[in-house]
Amino acid sequence: MEEKFMREALRLARKAKAMGEVPIGAVVVVGGKVVGRGYNLRTKLQMATAHAEMRAIDRACKALHSWRLEGAEIYVTLEPCPMCMGAILNARIDRVYFGAYEQKGRSLTSALAGANLLNHTAEVTGGVMERECSEILTAFFSEMREREKKKREGNSETV
Amino acid sequence: MEEKFMREALRLARKAKAMGEVPIGAVVVVGGKVVGRGYNLRTKLQMATAHAEMRAIDRACKALHSWRLEGAEIYVTLEPCPMCMGAILNARIDRVYFGAYEQKGRSLTSALAGANLLNHTAEVTGGVMERECSEILTAFFSEMREREKKKREGNSETV
Repeated sequence: MEEKFMREALRLARKAKAMGEVPIGAVVVVGGKVVGRGYNLRTKLQMATAHAEMRAIDRACKALHSWRLEGAEIYVTLEPCPMCMGAILNARIDRVYFGAYEQKGRSLTSALAGANLLNHTAEVTGGVMERECSEILTAFFSEMREREKKKREGNSETV
Repeated sequence: MEEKFMREALRLARKAKAMGEVPIGAVVVVGGKVVGRGYNLRTKLQMATAHAEMRAIDRACKALHSWRLEGAEIYVTLEPCPMCMGAILNARIDRVYFGAYEQKGRSLTSALAGANLLNHTAEVTGGVMERECSEILTAFFSEMREREKKKREGNSETV
């Protein structure tokens, strides 16, 4: 585990934030090199599958001309949802490092990683640079609520 | 449930087969109309995420300019893997009809569909046109084994 890769994922999360997206970033690493980067673009692309991990995995597959990313690691700022954990297993990625914990999907995501579907399991480590990874999400949602509150107040003034 | 949509998914599975891919097809339906079609292209694209359902969902999101496919149904010839079931939930698709059963992922896929992640569950019906959906897969794998056997025999003859 190298913090520099989580820092790179955090940089990508900030790019998402700058575009008004929920700030989540991910990088795929093979042999100590980043081979795929991604950040959440669900709203901008209006695409349910445009999560940070999916975009990083697609880019890694393209870069390596292979759907099998054996020996790969993925660093992601938030615990992967079931879709993304499924994609991680489909791509035969060996290790997952994530930052903030996602309470809702937690047990299922772990169950998936260890279920030995496809004769492949992934080792998952959570809480990497957890404070930074959580803070960027908390700040995003609190700013969003603040904006919505102001909007509502503005609306009620014009009534 | 309408068989014509599973027949359309089977037509797409045959397109995959013609390209040497594991024959799986999917369609997303909204209001009785197909809004997204997809078939497996994992080998051709060398992309771990290029499953039939993912491609059909991406196309449906593009067609409707929305990551939320509420009121949508998906028809797929094989039981979705966890990645695809995760994507179905992320896209807020309401109903899943699949043909052949996938023994390996079965319990996890069902667990995902009913887990009420994202305050959304999907109703899943398996075994739709099961015979046709299974046969195309069985035939594909048996032809593949036959080709590999011949290849091995050819190789040993030239030794």
